[in-house]
Amino acid sequence: MTPLRGVLAPVITPFTPGLAPDPVRFQRHCAWLLAHGCAGLAPFGTTSEATSLGLDERKDLLEGLVASGLDPARLLPGTGCCALTETAALSAHAAALGCSGVLMLPPFYYKGVSEEGLFASYSEVIQRVGDARLRIYLYHIPPFTGVPLPIGLVERLLKAYPGTIAGVKDSGGDWAHSEALLGLAAQGLEVFVGSEVFLLRALRSGGAGCITASANVNPGALDQLFRRWREPGAEALQAGADRVRTSLQSHGPLVPAVKAVVAHFAQDPAWKTVRPPLVPLPETQTRALVEDLLEAGFAMPELS
Amino acid sequence: MTPLRGVLAPVITPFTPGLAPDPVRFQRHCAWLLAHGCAGLAPFGTTSEATSLGLDERKDLLEGLVASGLDPARLLPGTGCCALTETAALSAHAAALGCSGVLMLPPFYYKGVSEEGLFASYSEVIQRVGDARLRIYLYHIPPFTGVPLPIGLVERLLKAYPGTIAGVKDSGGDWAHSEALLGLAAQGLEVFVGSEVFLLRALRSGGAGCITASANVNPGALDQLFRRWREPGAEALQAGADRVRTSLQSHGPLVPAVKAVVAHFAQDPAWKTVRPPLVPLPETQTRALVEDLLEAGFAMPELS
Repeated sequence: MTPLRGVLAPVITPFTPGLAPDPVRFQRHCAWLLAHGCAGLAPFGTTSEATSLGLDERKDLLEGLVASGLDPARLLPGTGCCALTETAALSAHAAALGCSGVLMLPPFYYKGVSEEGLFASYSEVIQRVGDARLRIYLYHIPPFTGVPLPIGLVERLLKAYPGTIAGVKDSGGDWAHSEALLGLAAQGLEVFVGSEVFLLRALRSGGAGCITASANVNPGALDQLFRRWREPGAEALQAGADRVRTSLQSHGPLVPAVKAVVAHFAQDPAWKTVRPPLVPLPETQTRALVEDLLEAGFAMPELS
Repeated sequence: MTPLRGVLAPVITPFTPGLAPDPVRFQRHCAWLLAHGCAGLAPFGTTSEATSLGLDERKDLLEGLVASGLDPARLLPGTGCCALTETAALSAHAAALGCSGVLMLPPFYYKGVSEEGLFASYSEVIQRVGDARLRIYLYHIPPFTGVPLPIGLVERLLKAYPGTIAGVKDSGGDWAHSEALLGLAAQGLEVFVGSEVFLLRALRSGGAGCITASANVNPGALDQLFRRWREPGAEALQAGADRVRTSLQSHGPLVPAVKAVVAHFAQDPAWKTVRPPLVPLPETQTRALVEDLLEAGFAMPELS
């Protein structure tokens, strides 16, 4: 399978008023994202409130998505849980559905764990899944997990499981770390940055693309940057993308902000709903965010 | 139901060589703990590697424990997950089994969440369980969760759900925070400290006891301190307990250290096994730990 490259959206998860996942809105948003610039989708990421969903809820949403006709080769669902048994169960499920790969958080409850322990955890999952189709993208996001994935661990896993360790998503926000990972691109590691602010730099260094919250609302512009990064206008495209990112980040916590923007532009207030412990973006903040985005010339095409 | 008071053990979870939970060793250790000083048991705590277990594994172990004849009124199982649906499922299960209460972590993936979001999360769980038998002990352990439970949140929950919010376990390691919580004891809050080093101070301020890793190996001495805290020898008992705690803490990460001690004194190497991302205590560290404990006059009675 050709590895996914380009802009991937960690798809936001819609909820009903009773806080149940809403598969119809979910499928509609997924189809819209693929039609408007996303090369692939990474449902069940941090932006998706994945850890706020139960295992069955995640499996049901993924099965429904594939049943809706969406090509599983475009999917990179998140599967990393605290318990390796659950990570293995979700990963086996995704691989069996034909997903392009899985995005795997390390077990994130215990802090200060050894590289040896993290290696053992990923090894155990790979052996339990026991499916040659499994492609793992390691998910480095210490601001949430408190459990960084050191370069040495990535190298060791890549060496031990060359056909299985496919890539990494770096959401650490530290360009030096991304650069070190990009040094492994020659060994076949697909490196996605976790924010588009690093996209141009990453592409210039052999990166695979980005998996970013804002792809939920701004997939077209990000895709343009991905496609035209070698052209003279690339810096301007990066600046335009940064402008939208800054607006989203400066008006509230990112997940409720992204959902508020979709709710506004799709004229579908249901999108505002988040599961606790997150709370919806207050109306005043939403208005300020939307105004700021409009001022930047931002638009979302035919979203409904 | 009279609330549990005294020394509670966050029971270590034994694993088979294939890393499956071992219900027989688990039940045997639980019975031993109750026979040697523990007033109650808090299975599925941090020391239990709870988050490394799947939901079904936790339910099966708990059901097996109750089926083995252990009085559920002595049990305070941990039930807090990242997803409120899973927290509700485990809590409903524990309440239906007749457990004295549940020890509930906040959702711990998202950081910097608001007090409003945490309140909504606990509220939603309480409403979903919908069982008047539910008694919640809030579990404050920011070194692992990164999500502190502020005093204001505890007060608000206590006021909103006076029959349901029964207590708190404070594993923050900050006595000032414990003292603030103990100020709510008059309103019916049962305050357990998460380390015996604070036990005497907590009892002098109206605390309910402690829930501590070392109760897995030192229940008798801790129980003596709990029973005799008003007597002249209390300070010496506290010092003796501290000596064992210091030994455990200074010879390696606490969970593998506690398991290594049980493995050694029970002459049962199977206890050394931990689930990744934890790793077993190396042999040299184990020897040093055991020697240090023996030097301190430590013994574990008839553990087998």
